[in-house]
Amino acid sequence: MLSSLLKPEILELVRAREWSVLRDVLSDWPAQEVADLILELEKDERVLLFRGLSREVAAEVFSHLALEQQDHLLRDLTDAETRRLLSDLPPDDRTALLEELPGQATQRLLNLLDPDDLKEARWLLGYPEESVGRLMTPDYVAIHPDWTIGDALQHVRRFGRDSETINRVFVVDRGWRLLDDLELRWLILEEPDVLVRDLMDGSFASVSAFADREVAVSLIRKYDQTVLPVIDSGGVLLGIVTVDDLLDVQEEEATEDFHLAGSVEPLRQSFREAGLGLLYRRRIGWLVALVLVNFFSGAAISRYEDTIQAVVALTIFLPLLIGSGGNAGAQASTLMVRALATGDVGAGDWLRLLGRELAVAAAIGATMAMAVAAVGAIQAPEVLVVVSMTMFIVVVVGSLIGMSAPFVLARLGVDPAVASAPLITSVADVTGVLIYFTIANWYLGLS
Amino acid sequence: MLSSLLKPEILELVRAREWSVLRDVLSDWPAQEVADLILELEKDERVLLFRGLSREVAAEVFSHLALEQQDHLLRDLTDAETRRLLSDLPPDDRTALLEELPGQATQRLLNLLDPDDLKEARWLLGYPEESVGRLMTPDYVAIHPDWTIGDALQHVRRFGRDSETINRVFVVDRGWRLLDDLELRWLILEEPDVLVRDLMDGSFASVSAFADREVAVSLIRKYDQTVLPVIDSGGVLLGIVTVDDLLDVQEEEATEDFHLAGSVEPLRQSFREAGLGLLYRRRIGWLVALVLVNFFSGAAISRYEDTIQAVVALTIFLPLLIGSGGNAGAQASTLMVRALATGDVGAGDWLRLLGRELAVAAAIGATMAMAVAAVGAIQAPEVLVVVSMTMFIVVVVGSLIGMSAPFVLARLGVDPAVASAPLITSVADVTGVLIYFTIANWYLGLS
Repeated sequence: MLSSLLKPEILELVRAREWSVLRDVLSDWPAQEVADLILELEKDERVLLFRGLSREVAAEVFSHLALEQQDHLLRDLTDAETRRLLSDLPPDDRTALLEELPGQATQRLLNLLDPDDLKEARWLLGYPEESVGRLMTPDYVAIHPDWTIGDALQHVRRFGRDSETINRVFVVDRGWRLLDDLELRWLILEEPDVLVRDLMDGSFASVSAFADREVAVSLIRKYDQTVLPVIDSGGVLLGIVTVDDLLDVQEEEATEDFHLAGSVEPLRQSFREAGLGLLYRRRIGWLVALVLVNFFSGAAISRYEDTIQAVVALTIFLPLLIGSGGNAGAQASTLMVRALATGDVGAGDWLRLLGRELAVAAAIGATMAMAVAAVGAIQAPEVLVVVSMTMFIVVVVGSLIGMSAPFVLARLGVDPAVASAPLITSVADVTGVLIYFTIANWYLGLS
Repeated sequence: MLSSLLKPEILELVRAREWSVLRDVLSDWPAQEVADLILELEKDERVLLFRGLSREVAAEVFSHLALEQQDHLLRDLTDAETRRLLSDLPPDDRTALLEELPGQATQRLLNLLDPDDLKEARWLLGYPEESVGRLMTPDYVAIHPDWTIGDALQHVRRFGRDSETINRVFVVDRGWRLLDDLELRWLILEEPDVLVRDLMDGSFASVSAFADREVAVSLIRKYDQTVLPVIDSGGVLLGIVTVDDLLDVQEEEATEDFHLAGSVEPLRQSFREAGLGLLYRRRIGWLVALVLVNFFSGAAISRYEDTIQAVVALTIFLPLLIGSGGNAGAQASTLMVRALATGDVGAGDWLRLLGRELAVAAAIGATMAMAVAAVGAIQAPEVLVVVSMTMFIVVVVGSLIGMSAPFVLARLGVDPAVASAPLITSVADVTGVLIYFTIANWYLGLS
């Protein structure tokens, strides 16, 4: 092979520090070959050779190295080089690297990056959209357990000025693994010669950088804290998320659920500033999908054209009946979607809540049947019994559909908020048409 | 009068400290008379006499005193006596008292009350439901501007242990008026002999105890703080609200809007624990109201019985058309309700947004008209043109109704979230029926 053939010459070029010649020669080599070559070099030669490679080649070669070698190489690169390398890597390789890299390395990368580049860096670091990793900042103060309170406060005074919040400081070991969190005020209230270790109780709340940001919201609410440490799978402290960011997250998540509940794909940006094209795209999908659902209502009606022809008065109550079933369903799904989103109710509670929903829906259905009987008595007495019976049944069936749909969606791995009022209304419409004309045919003896 | 007649005797009894005799004598007196009598006594005698009165009489007499005398009397009562007196006052008198009382007095009441009684005390203090006053706690640390940082930190060490948060301390003058807020870490980072005054910049965010709690949420988000001072109309510091409570508020408010959007009256309690009766009451009102709206759809259809009789195929498309108009309207109202709730859009933006909505709705309507033409071409070619034209118009009209309704409600002083998907859908249904049969009659030359 080319590489083995030329290897002695290459090694000689390395020893002679002929970087520009090497760069030319190696630019034609397959990346795997260059990676193999690098492994045969001394540690400091590796970095020098690597630096000599063109950007594309360097990224490709890096991808071919084993994780351990990647880690070693990263330690010897400057921060600027590291950042450049990361941005040249294909996104999936980058994510794989960051997920596998020891936490210390990730944490070092985060800590040393320019704050202005933090947004880009978090993206570079491969944390998924809406993950805690995208929210975290490295602006915290860490202390060690064998320090005195005096040392710790001295450290806070020196490094605390730029920190996002120093109301809580974090105790880490030499490998930067998180051991505990302490409130600054606890330090203030202690004598300076007490050891940090003696204040520690080893109990703290933390969140993974790969967790969904909603997890951070519920944790910070549960523990009534203003800041939450972010760790990797090995327990290494990567950064913090602060409550002011989580307030924004909570509102954004509520807005997303709100949009879904109105069968709009979440905008994920200011409505005021959203363009025409975006608004169109976020709305048209669901509307067309609902046309298909509604079309079943039409198909169902077409089966009963003879019934309609015979008793046209039935049509008068059609919108009222299918509308009421839909509205009751929308109420039931709204209550359930929100209860699931806030954690008030769990995905396994369906059966437990079904009985209650049935009782409430029956009471509502009975009331509605009486209301429609009272309103309709004058207008079309010949269909009154059919209409009242139908009202009761469509309200109960609509409510059960609305109440159950969020659970079904959750089971399928879909956001329960997709069980929007318009979706439930449309599904309840189809059901309502079928119920209505079935009862009408039976009661009026039409078919 | 009885009182003037007996006054010398009464004064003698007071001087002789005959409290039990006085109590019996005064229990029959009109409250106004006792109040007049009290004003003639020396300051320390007033309190002693007041203490001798039975609870009902004391509360009545207190109500008859002028504000200034009430204030003086309160200063001399113990906390237990004050609380008992407040709970005996009629609610409107209590609110009037607290609204008018100098902030120092309110603040003293709040500060000295037992933490366990705080919830009751906030209610006693007459702050309206969902106001900041109901959320605040007196657990803060206040310092004075002429103290040194050393004094201030000493004070924090002594009184900070029980405080809800000492991450931020509050600078007040001798009248307890709020002058500034300082972060604890700023104090830590300074030399101990610097004066508090020298750290002050006089800029701070604060909120009135009578403000809606949503105001506190938006302020704390705007200023990225973890705690917000609560003041009375005179600028006196009454307490603080903390971000962890406001996270809960933000979620509760979103839940209320969510319920309204599904035409459910807000539960304001856990859905999981809500009883059958409560769920029934929160749902039935809107459903019955919507029956009335939907009934107009029926009435509209009944006007067109002849048209239906002539072309029964029109009925097949009825649910599809009015459903689509309703769904487009629900989307438009959902977007607008949420944008108004988060402050993304203001109540005065209607006209500015109308043009954009019209453009988006026209594009959506055109797409939907094509979709329904494609789907319906086989089933009922004779009504295809009518159906496509109707689809375009109902989508545009439904969208404009949905988009405008929240603004109309806001103008009427109603929560825009009342423009729920079911309400908009029902209103759009009526409109849709009228549009559909008008076009059908005109195009098919039926009437």
